[in-house]
Formats: sequence, structure tokens, C-alpha cells
Amino acid sequence: MANYDLVIRGGTVATASDTFQADVAVSDGRIVAIGENLGGAAREVSAVGRLVLPGGVDSHCHIEEPQVGEIQNADSFVSATSSAAAGGTTTVISFSQQTKGSGISDALRDYHRKAALALIDYSFHLVVTDPTDAVLEELVPLIEEGHRSLKIFMTYTNVVLDDEQTLRVLALARRTGALVTVHAENHAAIMYLTRVLEKAGLTSPKHHAWAKPMPVEREACHRIIMLSELLDVPIQIFHVSGAEAAEEIRRAQNRGLKVFGETCPQYLMLTAQDLDRPNFEGAKFLCSPAPRTEADQEALWDYIRTGTIGVVSSDHAPNRFDDPHGKKVGGENAPFSAIPNGVPGLATRLPILFSEGVSKGRIDLNTFVALTSTNPAKLFGLHPKKGTIAVGADADIAIWDPERQVTIRNDMLHHHVDYTVYEGVKVKGWPIMTLSRGEVICDEGAVVGKSGHGRFLARGPYEAIKPRGKHVTPFDPVTGSVETATR
Amino acid sequence: MANYDLVIRGGTVATASDTFQADVAVSDGRIVAIGENLGGAAREVSAVGRLVLPGGVDSHCHIEEPQVGEIQNADSFVSATSSAAAGGTTTVISFSQQTKGSGISDALRDYHRKAALALIDYSFHLVVTDPTDAVLEELVPLIEEGHRSLKIFMTYTNVVLDDEQTLRVLALARRTGALVTVHAENHAAIMYLTRVLEKAGLTSPKHHAWAKPMPVEREACHRIIMLSELLDVPIQIFHVSGAEAAEEIRRAQNRGLKVFGETCPQYLMLTAQDLDRPNFEGAKFLCSPAPRTEADQEALWDYIRTGTIGVVSSDHAPNRFDDPHGKKVGGENAPFSAIPNGVPGLATRLPILFSEGVSKGRIDLNTFVALTSTNPAKLFGLHPKKGTIAVGADADIAIWDPERQVTIRNDMLHHHVDYTVYEGVKVKGWPIMTLSRGEVICDEGAVVGKSGHGRFLARGPYEAIKPRGKHVTPFDPVTGSVETATR
Amino acid sequence: MANYDLVIRGGTVATASDTFQADVAVSDGRIVAIGENLGGAAREVSAVGRLVLPGGVDSHCHIEEPQVGEIQNADSFVSATSSAAAGGTTTVISFSQQTKGSGISDALRDYHRKAALALIDYSFHLVVTDPTDAVLEELVPLIEEGHRSLKIFMTYTNVVLDDEQTLRVLALARRTGALVTVHAENHAAIMYLTRVLEKAGLTSPKHHAWAKPMPVEREACHRIIMLSELLDVPIQIFHVSGAEAAEEIRRAQNRGLKVFGETCPQYLMLTAQDLDRPNFEGAKFLCSPAPRTEADQEALWDYIRTGTIGVVSSDHAPNRFDDPHGKKVGGENAPFSAIPNGVPGLATRLPILFSEGVSKGRIDLNTFVALTSTNPAKLFGLHPKKGTIAVGADADIAIWDPERQVTIRNDMLHHHVDYTVYEGVKVKGWPIMTLSRGEVICDEGAVVGKSGHGRFLARGPYEAIKPRGKHVTPFDPVTGSVETATR
Amino acid sequence: MANYDLVIRGGTVATASDTFQADVAVSDGRIVAIGENLGGAAREVSAVGRLVLPGGVDSHCHIEEPQVGEIQNADSFVSATSSAAAGGTTTVISFSQQTKGSGISDALRDYHRKAALALIDYSFHLVVTDPTDAVLEELVPLIEEGHRSLKIFMTYTNVVLDDEQTLRVLALARRTGALVTVHAENHAAIMYLTRVLEKAGLTSPKHHAWAKPMPVEREACHRIIMLSELLDVPIQIFHVSGAEAAEEIRRAQNRGLKVFGETCPQYLMLTAQDLDRPNFEGAKFLCSPAPRTEADQEALWDYIRTGTIGVVSSDHAPNRFDDPHGKKVGGENAPFSAIPNGVPGLATRLPILFSEGVSKGRIDLNTFVALTSTNPAKLFGLHPKKGTIAVGADADIAIWDPERQVTIRNDMLHHHVDYTVYEGVKVKGWPIMTLSRGEVICDEGAVVGKSGHGRFLARGPYEAIKPRGKHVTPFDPVTGSVETATR
Repeated sequence: MANYDLVIRGGTVATASDTFQADVAVSDGRIVAIGENLGGAAREVSAVGRLVLPGGVDSHCHIEEPQVGEIQNADSFVSATSSAAAGGTTTVISFSQQTKGSGISDALRDYHRKAALALIDYSFHLVVTDPTDAVLEELVPLIEEGHRSLKIFMTYTNVVLDDEQTLRVLALARRTGALVTVHAENHAAIMYLTRVLEKAGLTSPKHHAWAKPMPVEREACHRIIMLSELLDVPIQIFHVSGAEAAEEIRRAQNRGLKVFGETCPQYLMLTAQDLDRPNFEGAKFLCSPAPRTEADQEALWDYIRTGTIGVVSSDHAPNRFDDPHGKKVGGENAPFSAIPNGVPGLATRLPILFSEGVSKGRIDLNTFVALTSTNPAKLFGLHPKKGTIAVGADADIAIWDPERQVTIRNDMLHHHVDYTVYEGVKVKGWPIMTLSRGEVICDEGAVVGKSGHGRFLARGPYEAIKPRGKHVTPFDPVTGSVETATR
Repeated sequence: MANYDLVIRGGTVATASDTFQADVAVSDGRIVAIGENLGGAAREVSAVGRLVLPGGVDSHCHIEEPQVGEIQNADSFVSATSSAAAGGTTTVISFSQQTKGSGISDALRDYHRKAALALIDYSFHLVVTDPTDAVLEELVPLIEEGHRSLKIFMTYTNVVLDDEQTLRVLALARRTGALVTVHAENHAAIMYLTRVLEKAGLTSPKHHAWAKPMPVEREACHRIIMLSELLDVPIQIFHVSGAEAAEEIRRAQNRGLKVFGETCPQYLMLTAQDLDRPNFEGAKFLCSPAPRTEADQEALWDYIRTGTIGVVSSDHAPNRFDDPHGKKVGGENAPFSAIPNGVPGLATRLPILFSEGVSKGRIDLNTFVALTSTNPAKLFGLHPKKGTIAVGADADIAIWDPERQVTIRNDMLHHHVDYTVYEGVKVKGWPIMTLSRGEVICDEGAVVGKSGHGRFLARGPYEAIKPRGKHVTPFDPVTGSVETATR
Repeated sequence: MANYDLVIRGGTVATASDTFQADVAVSDGRIVAIGENLGGAAREVSAVGRLVLPGGVDSHCHIEEPQVGEIQNADSFVSATSSAAAGGTTTVISFSQQTKGSGISDALRDYHRKAALALIDYSFHLVVTDPTDAVLEELVPLIEEGHRSLKIFMTYTNVVLDDEQTLRVLALARRTGALVTVHAENHAAIMYLTRVLEKAGLTSPKHHAWAKPMPVEREACHRIIMLSELLDVPIQIFHVSGAEAAEEIRRAQNRGLKVFGETCPQYLMLTAQDLDRPNFEGAKFLCSPAPRTEADQEALWDYIRTGTIGVVSSDHAPNRFDDPHGKKVGGENAPFSAIPNGVPGLATRLPILFSEGVSKGRIDLNTFVALTSTNPAKLFGLHPKKGTIAVGADADIAIWDPERQVTIRNDMLHHHVDYTVYEGVKVKGWPIMTLSRGEVICDEGAVVGKSGHGRFLARGPYEAIKPRGKHVTPFDPVTGSVETATR
Repeated sequence: MANYDLVIRGGTVATASDTFQADVAVSDGRIVAIGENLGGAAREVSAVGRLVLPGGVDSHCHIEEPQVGEIQNADSFVSATSSAAAGGTTTVISFSQQTKGSGISDALRDYHRKAALALIDYSFHLVVTDPTDAVLEELVPLIEEGHRSLKIFMTYTNVVLDDEQTLRVLALARRTGALVTVHAENHAAIMYLTRVLEKAGLTSPKHHAWAKPMPVEREACHRIIMLSELLDVPIQIFHVSGAEAAEEIRRAQNRGLKVFGETCPQYLMLTAQDLDRPNFEGAKFLCSPAPRTEADQEALWDYIRTGTIGVVSSDHAPNRFDDPHGKKVGGENAPFSAIPNGVPGLATRLPILFSEGVSKGRIDLNTFVALTSTNPAKLFGLHPKKGTIAVGADADIAIWDPERQVTIRNDMLHHHVDYTVYEGVKVKGWPIMTLSRGEVICDEGAVVGKSGHGRFLARGPYEAIKPRGKHVTPFDPVTGSVETATR
């Protein structure tokens, strides 16, 4: 008798805290039972000798964003979520970006339309580039409808916010209940150094890293921390690239602030040297912040182990290399400032982190699950629906062979980018099957999910976005009400 | 049809990472399924509106230890584990202490015999007070048989180890695979200050805190951290009482060391002022380290939230107050140095932490589970058998009413101590039923477990006791083998 | 036979490092000998039982600045330097401020003209408010002529520089050899909080402190440190008001940066409570940064003792209280944002610091000399001509009675301000005679110096403004030349 | 007409704070005038183009200590102070060591007798190895007679004190007014590691550094800081060898403690690699603590610049190399534990520090004077008689040619050691004449001073040894009196 739609049988299940042998039963796309010798099912999948992990939640990826000048985001929601599925990821949070000057709703509506073709579930951060009163007003219902995270930039011409604008966004986030995510680098310093480098004729890809040294990121981290501390608003700092930036986050956490840190595999695997590869190949590795040193990589692992950095996302940014709409938009020998930033990473995020982290003994399996699935799900209000193997959760599951050794090749990755920064890298541990709400969407490298299966994930109010209620001022810095309690 | 021995139905299950609605099914004392609408059972318990949590693991409690002079440990394994059960705790790790000069095996055998009467499962730390070659040799098979944690003292006459002895114990721990737990206070400083106080006639209970100020604990923490760093041996520092000691642990963790921190409810709830209560009542609150200040309490909550302190145990020390074999062993007005140290706490540990932590919003429910059950279970090699609600785990479960408001009275606590430091304290949240391996052992305050139900938990090698493999010397400081890798 | 113009006989001379009994002989305005029983002189002054100290160097005072709207700087160079002389100070560095939009030279010429009436020697910081290419170009010869310090603001509408402008000024400072001094507070945050407070009707003087809490200053400190670190330019951070800001400076110094810290007596003596005095009297104490807490005062003394803060200046800002061109420019009950900032302090700086520092045992006499005279003289290129009692130095000398007890009254202070924040404060130690280049300019409280005696102090290149030569980038961030050395 | 016994004419005088051109006049062995064109003198010395610096104060040197087993201290007071004079040093503080078990007075009397032959002035630290009540009692009058500094060891068999003994010494120091100097390394850890190394056959000189890694020193620093903090007694930590130890001192200073740091040229110039030189030559460089890494050297310079480390002494330890009573006391291939510790350094201390510090731009001239003369003179109660060029001070003067380039050869050094660790090192800057109380004792390398010229320097109570008056306990930890003030 088929009690369940599906039973994944005999695997080793791991959550962010536990590892145990069990069958996992799924009905109607949800996990309905975890147990020993669970009853029959319409479909059975053997996971003997395998790991049964929650599908990855990638809370930072750029998908099908509108063309900027000649630069095209190479991935559609179909290709991007295919790539995600191939890499064991079952939820993506991408960005709906305001076009400066115009409102935010039209872009969002359009973005929803595109995303409807996704193979897996998705949600959006709303990128605010022009926080006028009108735009802030427009944001209120959008946040309340479930877009409970905002993204702001402290650098990049056209999208950078100054401190005054940042405070407006933070105040809105506090009023409405939204988590603010931040690209933290000091814009003026980067612009200044870029000009000096250009004047000196130092414009090859490797000089990108010269134009944005670590202190530029450290400063912006400290500044956004202060602004968020002042208004008592939780923030997540994106793509922490090295020790100095992470230390600022730790200092903030140590004094009780809700400042969350994220890093990406590229900061654990690449260094500034990679931007110096010949034949313009350095451009493939060009991203912001820039990769740092091996000492920074080691430091990041330490910050991961102590919990200062709690999320590892991909920051998937799909720019093709050999393409006039990609890395070569400015030509073969374009100055670094004309090269689109970012590296692709949706499919490689989990295998790289599993291999470098779990297989090499730097982190345990539960920490891997936490970093890549549970923590981002909690931080962005998707838990417990997403981010764990638990009764009631969506059956977003990745089955891993922890022993399988794979040499990464770009043609395994199912994205529309013509390269990966991990070409030829050998990993141990590989996701051999991915399920989204109980449907197999990738099976031994073959993407079998259906476009349009993915659904938008509206997010309600949740714990991480609650203010602390402790203020550095004797009044509420958002409402202006006088308080007795002081810092 | 009874598929299961027992189903706990309809509750909200929480682990260290997840919270979800589910039935929990038990057979043969183990959790065999967690799911929606699980099939029938021989016995059903409704947990609707309740929390279903893993039973507490109390990794630090003094039970039925041999008499020292006239001082008697008031609790037997029966009374102590009854008290534990009443407070939602289902595993205790107590201490088998070497009698200095004689070996360790005899005491252990005797201790096993006493513990066999326990109502819940138990394990032992082996207290080493005299690490001669012979004693160390004797320890090897005992560790390998499953006593995989040692306890050492940096203070207390007769049991204090000097640094040379400590290094011997640490080296043994590394060779055999054992976790070393430490009472960290500088003995000479306490002795010195005590003499000065006694000469000045300052000997009432409150002066106990004067004799062991915070820096005395901070120093010992830093020292044991250095010694363990040198030999690459994981340690847990017991009962961290305030900010300065915790900061040393954080510094150690920040540089990647396996140094674990524990605190106890008394350090979150009491201050040095409590030792100044009239009529010798201060003696009730006398423990070591001494309770500190409110600022230290707040700091400890911060260190808990950032993970620096990962375990909250009771340090249950059952000395009766109005008893010539207890706090008054030296008479009504004995000098503080003649008063037995410690406070009882087996039954109150979880309700106090739940109420002050979860109900007051300082920590979330999952963190509560982690601190009181999952983390100690992992740290001491009991996980996943103990410390979680997961398939395959022992059905050690506490069912909580998170809304119940209780005023603590000593007669609820089922220990043999005639007081509690929390008399009259109001808490919100209470364990209403406790199960050990599927058997109800406490039901609405009535202890119904059977003496002898408890079993010894032998612990095999496990992750937390693995050395890091990174040394501050260019040779392995235990084996002497030369390495290429240096710090 | 008169060998010397003047001998100060029998006093206890103190420098920043030494204290000794000696006569001090002066000829032609310079110290020509220090010795025992020096030969005869045209004039003799007995200093038996007195201290003979170098006259104070006040490197931060606002004198006769142009009117801003209705706000008038109450002191002329005559009154201000009279006040300085009365308080034992013999050199002032005030500010020649660029009028935004127009050039810098005209204002400077005018300022030189006004300053020519001073009783004591003077120099200027050039305030840059509009660092266009033209303005920067104009600055080059002015710096080279001896105006070797610039002042920039990170807050105050109309004068605030953004990071891009700041980098331009820093780069100029590096190219020309100038020290950049900084008012460090985050402008946007202050503006934001001010708006919230105004909307809530919280606009009395005490709310000034609410609008600019400590983190606002800490942030700006960290930011300007990063910018100066990036360009390898020494900076002095003005008027550090409390622990958090000072900590950022210490961190910078610890990693070898040339970041210098200054504080003022008001931050050692006042707290935010002083702004809450009734009858608008709080306005007298309103300055920026705002006074903090007693804990911050204690912390500042610690930072002074460890050398993190090396200069104590006055930040003399002469706004009359009961005056429509002073504190009441916006009326009796003006909102705090309409009240001119600053407190007067030229005359009280040294007595307050002597009494609170030396007489109360917080610092020794040599440290007092260093903080108030030698260090600012070195930092601003005036040493050894100014800032010490040494052969060849200008005979700028203050003779102190270290035992004299004085109750401060505004009418002793010789400024044109109608109040002092230290009215009624009792001090021990008082300057009883002040000499400028050998001329007595104040004698027992009577200012006897002559207007026009003071001379402009042109400053050549000097040590403190040399770059470190260590860069965080692999190229010189100002010249763009590639280097082999990296951080 | 000869006004003065001696005038040093036309030089550039430098003190710890000032640098200026002046003649220096001496009569009766004291500086009586500093000035321009001072009158005639019985003797004139031209210092045109030269620096006139206070003679060095070497507050840490081992001279003519009694034989220990077969090990002989190679220098007599004659040879040692000749060497000092040749290197520009005019005061030494050496050690009178208690012979354990016997009293301290006899050894001291004997030591005074030996020292009477010195060419320069001297004082003694009293080494306490056995702080029984009787010994402490015996110390009281000796301290009061002017031996106001004690030395204790935290390592070395036979002389190491445990914490209880250390507290006794600290308490005595507080009662009598004495500064406690400390050799800070964890003895048990060194013993342990030495045994492991010996068992592994790793016993060549380089393994000496393996046996005492940095954390061993860091720990002892933290511990002695805590003990001194507890009793409110100032301490100086000797020979800080690297970053971790210095950081503990900085932390202590940051919280206001009177903890002073010293380092030595060997820790700025040597690394652990030097102990690996072939043919047993590594033994020449063997000292304790062991030299560290280049990164530690750089860190020490930073700690010097921020004032954390305020004294650079020699720790002169004269063990001949090719000598059965020196480094080879245990034979040609003795295990490191049998090799006498220490390097000679009396003559090289100042030239090395001048060249590496001043000539290479790491520190300025005034800081050099402070580190090598003024600061140790102040710290040990010799100032202003010693340690500066000031009226009234002893005419202990070194005349330097700052441009002279010298290649160091052992035969220039006038000690009785057969090697120097700086053989062949090129320095820029050299002391060309040394005067003690106005007498020339070294002239262009020729030691012309007279044995017996040197006098004992009795030291009275002074500032540095005053307790802070702030206690971590609510009672005075030495007297037991109850206080209202708490930490």
C-alpha cells in the first residue's frame, strides 16, 4: 500500500544540528515523515550510502537582470535554476533592481514574470537605488507582500547610496520589517584609486584588486554597522572577502548587534593572483570585492567556524567570457573598470564548499548544511518551509554521494556562462539527485525539472528582522519616542 | 493496530536547529519515526500546545560523591536523578574522583555501583588529582572503556594540579582521546587573599567572593588555554562566571583553538550581593567561582548568543544548609573558607534557562535546546543517541508547557537539599512530562521513574576530542615527531 | 655685569622629559642658557618655589573668524591672545577658513592682517571647504609658505567634505607636506537624528547630545583613518570626546599608522548632563562633539596616559551667551540646531589640566608639558623654537605656582565671552607670570603684553608630516608608481 | 678664566624630548650649565657635528655573578663596565642574587665589594629565589637602603618561584616600595617540552627555541600581570621577545595598570634561525626567551613606537663560547638544556639600537635617548641624577658621531667574552667619547676610565613604584583594610 508519494530510503539525513539514518517520506511535495522502515510509497529512491541533505538555499544570485548598456546577464531563470538544481540548490533569492529615477513596482512586476519560468522556488531582494520619499512609499506594500529584504550598494556609480540615503532605507526597513543586505565598499576610495591607476596606465584585470584593497571594504563594513546600530536595524553584509572586514562584523556581534556576515566560495578559493592570469583570462576571476590572500582565506574559515560568518552564497553573476556582451564588452584588452564584475557560481557553490569544507575536515556536515541552507533560510524568513529536513518542510532535498570524486568542467554546470573559475578543480562529494517539493529536478547531472515548477516565496515577518530594542540614543531613533533605557 | 510502543502526538518539536509540528513515535526506547499522523501506538501522549524537546543533558553535576571530612553530598543517585527528571533532564554526567594517593579504579568501580540505582542514563568524568605515572597508566583502559572525559582542578587544596601535572594529564588526554574539563581559578591567589581576609577578620560568606575576584579566574583560563594550545588538546572550561574569563575563551576560539566554554544558571541569576544575605543565608549562595555582577550576567548572555559559551550545566552541588554535614559543617558562623562550595541546581537548570532565556527573548528555543542538550551531548560523545529528537535517538524527551507560570519552591525539586537559590522565583515555561528511553519518569511533578532504569553511557572516540593538528611548535608536542608545518 | 637680558632665577624647570632646578637666561627673546647661578642680567625674575614651564601651545582655537549669518566670534586676536596669555599660553594656531566658492588666499590675507594685532605668536590651519582643482592649486604655495596644516570637516552643512573631496585634500597634503586635522563626526547621521528629534519636538540644548551619540564620532574616526591609511598621510583627529573614538585611534596607532589624537578639557570635565541645565544655560555647554559620560572621561585619561591621545587643546570657540549674536542668536529658546557650537577655553585650558591632571595625580608634570606644549609644537612643526625650555628656544615661558588655589571666575579670563563653563571650579596650580620671547605679557593676572608683539610662525617641512612609506596597495596611492613592497 | 671644569662645546644635545645646539658645562662631576657660548673651562671638548647624549643606563646586565657549577660569568665589574663605557653606557644595574637557602645579605655584601672596582656607577636588583619569612624580613632594610628593585624568575630550576612565592614577593614590594622585575616564561611547559625533545633526540641549540615557544612567554606575562594587578604592585617584564607577549602588556596598560615592558637588541636583530648555525655556533645565540621571527621583530618596533615597550636593555650575559666554563660547559655537542643562556651585549646595545632605530628611521633620536637612558633611569629611581642632559644631573655623557660607519668586531667591545652575536654587522652612528661624572672614560675606543671610579647608586622612594590605589577587590589586598572604592 502506498502511504506516501515518495520515500527516500536508507540514507543518512543531516540537518544543521543532527545526522542520523532514516527514511524520508514525502507527500504533496512536503516531508510528512522521517523514520525507520517507513511504509510503502508510490515512488522509492534508494539513498543507501548517501547523504540526504536539505536542498541549498542560495540567497545571493544575479539572474536575468536587465541589460546594462551592452552588458547582458547570461542566465535566464531557466538556465540559472537548472544550474542551481545541478548543484544541489533548490531555492534562489535574486534581485529585482529599481531603475533609478523610475519606480520599483514596474521592474518588480516584470521580474516576477521572468521568474515564473524557474525550475525551483525563488524569492527576491528589492534593490533600492534611489530612495526618494515616493520610492520608499512604493516599497511599503511590496515589502509587506513578502519581499522582506532590501539590497543597497555602498559603491558602483549609479547605484551607490550615500549615508543619508542609506539611513532612509534603514529607517524604512525598521518600520516595515525588512532585512537590509549590503554591498560594502567605499565608493569614493575606489574611484580615487581607479583614477590614479588609470593615469599610471595600470589597467589590466589584476589592477582591479589594486583599486579596492581590503581597508576599502573594512571601512564600509564599519560604517554600515554604525548606521544600522544607530537605527537598530538588522543587516547582512554580503560577500565578506577577508579578515579585516570580518573582524568588524565580529566586533559588532560581540557587542550584541544583529549584523550578519556572508561570504562566497570565490573568497575561500581564489586570490588576487588569479586576476593576473595571462591572455585576459584574469577577467574571468574579476569580482567585487576582489579576492584577497591565502591568509584571508584561512581567516574566513576561522570566522566561519566561530559563527561570525553564517552564510555562504554564490553571488552568481553570469557574464560570459568570450563575448562582446560579457567580460569582453570593452574589447579584448579593456581596462579593468570596463569589465563586468562577478563570477558564476550557482552550480559549484555546494560541491566546492562540501569538498573544501567537509571532505577536508574544516567544518562538519551539520555546519555545511547550516551555512548553505538552514542559516540563509532562517535569515530570510524561509525557514522551516525551506532549509531543513523536517516534518512539514517542503521536500527540497539533495542526495549526495560524499565519496564521489569529480573534476569540475564547465559543461556540467548547466548555466549559460562559457567558463567557471573552478575548471579542472577536483572535488570530493557530489549531489547526485536534487528534488524540489518532491519532484526530481536533477538526476545524475541530467536536469529533468520543468520550467515553471518554481514558485515565488512570499515572506512574512520573522525573527531575524526584529530590532533589538536597545538604542545608542535615549530616544527611539526611528520613531523619535523618548525612552528611559539607554545604551 | 499498534505500530509503535508510544506516540507523542501533536506537539511542537524543537531541535537545536528546527522547530516543527509532528508526532513522535517510539519503539524499544528509541525514536523510530517523526511525522504527521503517525499510525497507532500502544500508548499515546497528547502534546498539543506543548513543546516536545530532547531531554536535558546535564554534563556537570556532583552526585553521591564520597564524604570529605564531615561534609556529605546530600544526594544519592536516586534523589539526584529524580530531581533531574523533575526538571526535564534525562542524562547526567557526574564525577568519579580519584582519592589522592590511591588509584582511580577502585573509586570508579564503587561509583558505578552507586550509579546503577539511577533513574536516568549517566556517564562519568574521571577526576584526576594525582597524575603519577601509575595513575596515568591506570587511566588508559578506563578512558578506552568509555570514560572519555577528565576533570582537573586549578584550585582547591588537595585536588589542585600544578602546571606540570596538568601537562601530564593533557598529554594523556591527547594520546587516548579524552576531553579535559577544567575548574579554572588561580589557587595561590585565592589562598593568599583568603589569608589576608582572615587576618583582617573578614570571614563572612560575602567575603568568599572577595577572596576570588574575576582576574583570578581570568588568569587560570588564560593559563589552561595556553597549556592546551601547546599540546593541541581540546578542553572545556567549566562554569565561566563573567566577562573577563569569557573573553579569554573567545580570544582562544578566534585563533582556532578547541576551547569550549560552559556557564551555569547561577552565574546568569546571582550576583556577589547574594552572598551578603543575613543570618548566614549568604552561605546558600556560596559557590566557586563566585557570582559576579549584573554587568557580567549581561555579558554572559552576549557570549552565549555569539556561541563563545556553548553549554549551560547545573554544577549541581548538594550541600544542605541547616545541617552539620552541609553548609554549617563549621558551625553557624563559620568562616567562608570552612563552608562547602556549591549550589543545587539539577531540577532548576532548565526552567530557569527557559524562562530567562526563551520566555524573555534573550535566546530562541533552538538555542535553548542546543545549550542544554545537544551541545553537551556532542561535546561529550553522547550524540546523536542523546541530545536531540531524531530518528534513532534514545527517546529521552521532555514535554514542556511554554506558557505555564510556576513559582519555584524547594519542595518541587525532589533533591535532598533543604533549599534552592531560586526559592520564590517566578518562571514561565515548565517541563510537564519527562521520558527516559520512552518510559515516563516524571509526570506533572510526580517522579514515577524507577530506580535502576538508568544505564551507564560508555563513550567511544568522537569529533570534539580530536586534536586540531596545528601546533605552535615545529614538532608534535606530545609525540615529539618533527613536522614541516609550523604555526 | 649684565650678561643676559633676563634671568629667571631659582625655579624648577620642567620639560616634557625632565624636571630640575635651574636659572633660565634669556637674551634677544631666546633662551641662551640654563644653569646654576647664571651670571647677571638686566632683569631678574625670582622663580623660587615656582615651576618654570614652556608656555602653552594651543593648536586648536577659533579666533576672530568672520561672521556667519548673525553669529559673531566674540574674540579679536587682541582679546583672545590676552586670554591665552592670562592662562599661560604663548602660541596659538587658529583657523583661516576658505569661503566656499571663493578662493582661499583672500581670506588668508585678511586673516593675517587681523592676527598682526596679537600679543603672542600665532600660526594658522587652512580650512578647506571646497577642494576644487583651482582651490587645491591655490593651496600649494600657501602650504609651502608655512601654512603646513589643513583642517577638514566631516560634518556641518556648508563645510562638510564628502569622501571624494577628503581624498583630494589628503592627496594634496601628501604631495606638499601638510598635516590634515579633522573634525570627525558622521554628518548624515547627525542630520538624520536631528530631523527625528525636531519632528518629535525634542529640541532643547540637551538634545544636541542626543543628535550626535558616540558611534557617530567613532564611525567618522574609523573612516578618516582608513582614507588616510590608504593615501599614507598623517592626520590629527580633533577633540576626541570618549572611549569609542579613542579606541579607533589606538587601533590605528597599533598597526603603525600616523594617526594622532587630541582632546580638550571640556571632554575631561563636562558630561552630557551639563547640557540639561535650566534656563537655557545648557546652551553654554553645547559643543561638538558633545560631552559624554564620566566613564568616557576616565577612559580619556587612560588614553592620555598610554599616549594614544597626545595633545590637549582648548577648541576655544567664543560665543557669548546672553547675546543675539552668540548662543541666543536664535532667541531664548532656540532649538539646539540653531545654537552656535563651542565653549571658550583659551585661558582655562592649562589651569584645568594642571589641577585635574598634575595636582590630582592623574599625570605627572612632564606629561602635562608634553600634552599642552611640546607635543603640539612637534606635531605642527614649531618645535624646538616653541614647546620647550631649551637653549635656542624662544623664551616663551609660564611661571606657575603649583600650590596656589584659585576659584575660576569669568572676569579673570580676559576673553570677550560673558561666561566660562568652569565658573566656580576650584583649581590648584596657577600660572602667575607669562613671557613671550622674553617679554612679560601677563603678570599676576594683569595682561601687560602689547598688541602687535605676536608674530606669524611659518612652518617648514618637518617629521610628523612625512608619510610612512608603507602602503596598503602595491602602488603608491598618490603618485601611482608601482612598488615592490606591499603591506 | 676657567668658570667650569669642563665644557663640551658646540654639539647637538638631545634629551628624551628635545634636540638643540648648546655647550654643556660641567663642574664637580655635574652638569651646571647648558647654553650658548658658555664661558671658559679647565678643559674643553669639541662636539661640533656630534651628538651630546646622556650616557646609557643599562638596567639589565649580569656581571660577575657567582659561579654556578662549572659555569663562570666571564666578566668582572672591571671588564663589564669597560665594555659598557666603550658602548656609551655610564650606569649599570646588575643583579645580586640570593643563594637559595641562605640569606641575601651576605651575597649582597660580597657583591658590593666586587662592584667597587667598576669604572662607572652602578646599582643592583636583588634576586629573590627563596622568599621565606626570614628572607623577606631581611630584605626590608636592604630595600630601604636603596636596593629598590627585586628580580624574580618564573622559570629556571632552582630559582623559579611559584605563584604563592611570587605573591609574597609582590606584597613585600608594595609594603616597602620596590619595583619587581620579572623573567616571564612558564617553567612547567618548558620542562615538559624539553623532556619531549630530549626523548626524541632533538637537542641541538636550535631546539632550545622549540622548547620555549611564544605562548610559553605570553602565558607567564599574563599571569604575572594578574598577580601584580591583584596586589596593585608595579612590575617590569624583562626581555619581551615578540608580539604575543607584548600584546599582553599593552592590554594591561590599556586598563591602566603599571606594567612596564623591556626588550633587548637581540630580539630586534636575531631570529630562531640563528640558533641553527653550524658547528655549534648556534649556541652563541642561545638565550631566553628565545629569539623569534622577523614578524616579531617588526611587531616589537611597533610596540616600541606606541610606548608599550619603554626600555631597551642589554641583558648582557657573558658566557664565553669556546670555553669549558662557558657555552661548551657540557662539551662540544651538549644538549641545549646544558648550554648556558644569554648573549653579551653591554657594548653593542646602544650602537645597534642607534643604527637600526635612528639611522634607519624607525625611531627618532629623542626616543632613542628615552629607551636607553631616560626611561630606565626614571623607572628605577635614578632620574634626574642619571638619564638626561639637564642642569644638576651627573655629567654622564656620551658623544656620538651619527655618521660614523663601523663594522662591529668583538675586539672592540672590551668585554671578556670571546664572541659577539653582531660580529660583522655594519652600523651607522657610534659613541666616540664617554664621560662619567665629567671624567672621560672612553675616548675613540680606548677605555681610559679608572677602576673604582664607579659608585653605588642608592635609590630612594620614587614615582614608578607607587601603587595605583585602584584595587580589583573591595579591600586592600595587601593590608586587608576595607575600602569603599571598587574596581
